[in-house]
Amino acid sequence: MNPMEYAKQLPELFKKLHQDFFKDTPDNLYQPVAYAMQSGGKYIRPLLMIYANELFGGKQEDVVCNAYGIELFHNFTLVHDDIMDHAAIRRGKPTVFKKFGLNAGILSGDFMFIKSLQLCVGSDSQYRMELFDLISKTAIEIHEGQQMDVDFESQDMVSEEEYIQMICYKTAVLLACSLQMGAIIAGTSKKNQELLYEFGRLIGIAFQIQDDYLDSFGDQQVGKRIGGDILNNKKTLLYISSAKLASSDDRVKLIEWYQQQTSSEDDEITKISEVKEIFTRSGAKEYCKDQMNKYLQAGLDCLHKVESDYSKSKLLSIADLITKREL
Amino acid sequence: MNPMEYAKQLPELFKKLHQDFFKDTPDNLYQPVAYAMQSGGKYIRPLLMIYANELFGGKQEDVVCNAYGIELFHNFTLVHDDIMDHAAIRRGKPTVFKKFGLNAGILSGDFMFIKSLQLCVGSDSQYRMELFDLISKTAIEIHEGQQMDVDFESQDMVSEEEYIQMICYKTAVLLACSLQMGAIIAGTSKKNQELLYEFGRLIGIAFQIQDDYLDSFGDQQVGKRIGGDILNNKKTLLYISSAKLASSDDRVKLIEWYQQQTSSEDDEITKISEVKEIFTRSGAKEYCKDQMNKYLQAGLDCLHKVESDYSKSKLLSIADLITKREL
Repeated sequence: MNPMEYAKQLPELFKKLHQDFFKDTPDNLYQPVAYAMQSGGKYIRPLLMIYANELFGGKQEDVVCNAYGIELFHNFTLVHDDIMDHAAIRRGKPTVFKKFGLNAGILSGDFMFIKSLQLCVGSDSQYRMELFDLISKTAIEIHEGQQMDVDFESQDMVSEEEYIQMICYKTAVLLACSLQMGAIIAGTSKKNQELLYEFGRLIGIAFQIQDDYLDSFGDQQVGKRIGGDILNNKKTLLYISSAKLASSDDRVKLIEWYQQQTSSEDDEITKISEVKEIFTRSGAKEYCKDQMNKYLQAGLDCLHKVESDYSKSKLLSIADLITKREL
Repeated sequence: MNPMEYAKQLPELFKKLHQDFFKDTPDNLYQPVAYAMQSGGKYIRPLLMIYANELFGGKQEDVVCNAYGIELFHNFTLVHDDIMDHAAIRRGKPTVFKKFGLNAGILSGDFMFIKSLQLCVGSDSQYRMELFDLISKTAIEIHEGQQMDVDFESQDMVSEEEYIQMICYKTAVLLACSLQMGAIIAGTSKKNQELLYEFGRLIGIAFQIQDDYLDSFGDQQVGKRIGGDILNNKKTLLYISSAKLASSDDRVKLIEWYQQQTSSEDDEITKISEVKEIFTRSGAKEYCKDQMNKYLQAGLDCLHKVESDYSKSKLLSIADLITKREL
C-alpha cells in the first residue's frame, strides 16, 4: 500500500484511540480536541514514525499510540498558532478558537499538549525516558522557532543562517523527532536513530525553503494567494539571498519595498511583481532552488546510510511528497 | 528557620536556576517568563516539596530543581488562566499578557509548561518516570478542573460532590503532587508517598472551601472585594449547601438572586447582604466551616501516619498557613 493510501486509514484508527484516551474528559474540553483532530491533514508525522519503525522490523501496533501522540502534538501547535496568527480558517474549516472561542482554544491546546506528551512517551518502560527527552527537547525548539519567526518581523536584517535555524526549529525538528521516535521504539542503534533524525531535519528544511519559494513563484492554489509573504514583508530565503546577491540599485529598491505596507489592490499587484523581478534578476530564485536541492540531497544521503534489512521506498516516497509541497 | 523565612530565600535561589536553565532562550521569550517568575507569590508548592523531601532525610540540593519546576508549572497555569479570566492584575502588577501582549502570554505559557515538565522530571534516572507520570496526570486533572469550573457557570445546579471534585482538581492536586514529588525523590515507601499526597489533597480542599468562605465572610483585604463570588453567581459550597439546607422560601429567593446580574452599586450591596443572610440562616455558613475542618483534620491524620524519623513541624506549619488563607 502506498503512503497516501495508508494515510487514509489513519483517521479511523486515530478516532478509536481518541475515544479511548479521552473518554473521561469533560465534554466541553473533549469537543474542541476532537474537532481539531478530525479536521484532516496529511498525517505526514505519524507516517514518518510508522515507516521509520518498519525499517527495523517494527509493526504498526508497536507505534500507533505514539504516532497518534505526535499528530495530537502537531495539532496542539496549530491550535495555539492559529490564535496567535488570528487565522480564521484551517483546512477549509473554522479554526478551533473561531469555532469554540478564545478560552476553549487556549485550554484545549494546553490539554492536547500534555495528553500528546503522555502518548508520545507511551508505556514501554524500556524507551520512555529517551522518548520524553526527545519530544520535550523538540517542543522547546518549536517554541523557540516560533519566537524567532515573530522576532524576524521587526528585525531589519536576518542572516541566512538565522533563517535556516528558524525554519529548522519551527518545521523540521518535528519531522526529525517523528522519525527518531519510530527508530527508538524499534530498538535500533543510536547511529541509525541519528541518521533518521538528520534525514527528517534536512528534508524539513528543504520543504520549508520550497514552501517559501512557492509562495512567490508557485501556481495559484485553492485558498492560497501568491505573494502573501512579499506583502507581509516576510524575510524568507528569497528575500535574504536577494538582498545579498542583487545589484546595489535593486538592493535599495528591495529594501524600500519591504519597508512599505500596501494599501490598495493595485499597489499590491505592483509590489508583488516588482519584488519577484528583483528575486529573479538577482539570481535568488535559482539560489533558493539550489539550496532546496542541496538540503534534500543531504537528507537522502542520510537515509541511504541507515542500516536496515527492509525497503526504504516508503520513506523515499514521503520525502518526494514533502518536497513536492504536500506537507 | 521557619517556612516563611525560608521562603524568602527561594526567589534568589530560583533566579540563579532560571538564568541557567533559560540561558539559550530568545530574549522576547525569556522576558515574559522571567517576569512571571519574579512577581512573587508564597512559594507554597516548592516549600511542600522541599519539606516532604526533608522528612526522609533529603537535602535541599536534591530537590531544588524540581521545586523550581513545580513553581514554574504553577506560574504557567496562572499566565494562561489570567488570559482566560481577562485578569489585568496579579500580585499587584500587570499580568503577563497585559504587559507583553496576548501572543506572548500564550507562547511564553506554553514554553513555561514544557520547561517545567523537564525540570520536574529532572535527571535522576531512578525516579524520572515516576515523576513524569505524576506531574502529567496532575496537569491533566488541573485542566479538567479548570474546564469544570467554566462549565459550572452555565449549569443550573452543581452537586456538592461535583464541587469538591472541581476544587480538588483545580487547586488541591498540585499541592498533593508537590508533596509526593519530594517523597519520591527521597526514595521513601509508596505508602508514605500516598499518605503525603492525601495530606496535600485534603488540605488543598480545605483551603479552597475556606477561600470561598472568606470571599463572602472574610475581612476586607487589600485588592480583594467581599462578595465577588456572590455577584458572579459562583456556585461555591456556601451556595450549594445553602440551596440544600435553606427553607423553601429562602431557597427560591437564593436561586432568584443567582439568576440576576446586578447593574448598580446599590443593587450589588443589597444582593450581597441578602444572600449572606440566607447563607447564615440556612446553616450553610456553619456547614462550610465544619466541612473545612473535616478536610483539614483528615489531612492532618494522613500526615501523622507518615513514617518518618524527622520532625513534621514544618509541614504542619504550612498546613496551618494554608488554611489560614495565605496560599
